Amino acid sequence: MYDFDAEMAHCANDVERALGDRLSAARLSGPGPAPERLVDAMRHGSLEGGKRLRPLLVRQAAAIFSVPAERTLPAGLAVEMIHCYSLIHDDLPAMDNDDLRRGRPTVHKAYDDATAILAGDALLTHAFDLLADPDCHPDASVRIALVTELARGSGAGGMVGGQMRDIEGEQGQLSPAEIATMQAMKTGALIRASVRMGAILGGADARALAVLTAYAEASGRAFQLADDILDVTATAEALGKAAGKDAALGKQTLVATLGLEGARKHLADTVNAALSALRTFGPKADGLRATARFFASREH
Amino acid sequence: MYDFDAEMAHCANDVERALGDRLSAARLSGPGPAPERLVDAMRHGSLEGGKRLRPLLVRQAAAIFSVPAERTLPAGLAVEMIHCYSLIHDDLPAMDNDDLRRGRPTVHKAYDDATAILAGDALLTHAFDLLADPDCHPDASVRIALVTELARGSGAGGMVGGQMRDIEGEQGQLSPAEIATMQAMKTGALIRASVRMGAILGGADARALAVLTAYAEASGRAFQLADDILDVTATAEALGKAAGKDAALGKQTLVATLGLEGARKHLADTVNAALSALRTFGPKADGLRATARFFASREH
Repeated sequence: MYDFDAEMAHCANDVERALGDRLSAARLSGPGPAPERLVDAMRHGSLEGGKRLRPLLVRQAAAIFSVPAERTLPAGLAVEMIHCYSLIHDDLPAMDNDDLRRGRPTVHKAYDDATAILAGDALLTHAFDLLADPDCHPDASVRIALVTELARGSGAGGMVGGQMRDIEGEQGQLSPAEIATMQAMKTGALIRASVRMGAILGGADARALAVLTAYAEASGRAFQLADDILDVTATAEALGKAAGKDAALGKQTLVATLGLEGARKHLADTVNAALSALRTFGPKADGLRATARFFASREH
Repeated sequence: MYDFDAEMAHCANDVERALGDRLSAARLSGPGPAPERLVDAMRHGSLEGGKRLRPLLVRQAAAIFSVPAERTLPAGLAVEMIHCYSLIHDDLPAMDNDDLRRGRPTVHKAYDDATAILAGDALLTHAFDLLADPDCHPDASVRIALVTELARGSGAGGMVGGQMRDIEGEQGQLSPAEIATMQAMKTGALIRASVRMGAILGGADARALAVLTAYAEASGRAFQLADDILDVTATAEALGKAAGKDAALGKQTLVATLGLEGARKHLADTVNAALSALRTFGPKADGLRATARFFASREH
């Protein structure tokens, strides 16, 4: 029986320790020494943070192909660095203008806007450094496939493009289809990349990769739906950020178009779609199954 | 006889055309379609711009190893995208707060701050997508070496770290050694990466790579010195930006510490160091020789 809470905690622990190790002046140096203030801001925006769900997905997808957890850590860190940089940039006054993240000052509040922009840029850049390192995988062609996957998932046709669509959506009414596209890119694309990167580490064939992509896309939708429902139903204290903020900002979500009960029904259907995609895999996919269920339960 | 002006114009032409081709919604798509506004902002920040010196350096370094110019274009584009993203982010109000670049509105003036941040992020990300593409080089291990080189040159221990040091320098007095470190990272690291990426494309051995690195580091210092001298001596019209701006911002340059004549002498010595490093190469290094001389002549 897969113990989701234990596995998530274990993974988060591994990620925290490895990020702390990687984000040091010594490890970040290039032609010159990484400046202390920049390293500190990168650490502030990455450490003591979150559930580390994306590295967990890399690990769980790779587990289907019997890849040991520790061998997925560099790829997991790379995805997590992309996630953290996106939060740092999204929190900026020019974007969402958030002062708090997980109950702590955001990077631009703890430092300043310029440092936050640069810390985000440096984390984004370092993600690709990590993937290119032989520690990530001995085969250069696998590492290159990971670079392509992460770049596509996080670039103009993925996460960054989704953030752009989200900002554009604040200025006008989006249709449910446009909301779905925006969310599939803003949140879904990096979840998709995480699962696919785990599959790539495991040497998945085209068929397995397609099945896992279907799982990842449904899971990403579930994750975003649960998040949108949470924004409407939770208290600020439970969220660690202002509740109802999306609605106040005029952000378009499916809760607004489907209603709360409609959204909950849609969430249950979406999780079932994610679980169905995993039918061809045996108990080695229990990790991914548990995560899809966890995504749906976040609203409670 | 190497015709520098013709080669530079030819390279700039190739880069302009290839960038225009690459920066389209179709080519930038990932899991979702790249939003038009984001693609437009990426184009605004990249096209019709500059001398494309970094792709020229990639091309010239690769020419030593008889790599045809067109085979260096994807790697050259990747470096140029990193350069362009850095200008977009540096121009932001939170950083240098520049309204004009090459006589045109900067990206955040033509669009808005959020779009400029995202356009920079997307260009940075796409640079690694380009390097990972088999079009860049048929051998995955060469492509991986390029990813490492560009990530190190542009990350916390390279360009981004240099920008952080530059901002920190505005708050206090930097020693000449600290200025040299800051400049070696802010401007030098990407010039160094460009030359080394050309060498990597050419399959340079460790000895040739070391020699070309020495050339690149000296050339980078010459480039920055000429830029600092230009800032003091040129008119705003000739620069396309406000002259004397560095001094007004309290930016630390070697002109301030060495004086104008001292800086000119130092520039001549530095160019000679760059040329000396190329002694072991024959006429195939004439391109790199001409570029080092061009860097020094920019102040006239």
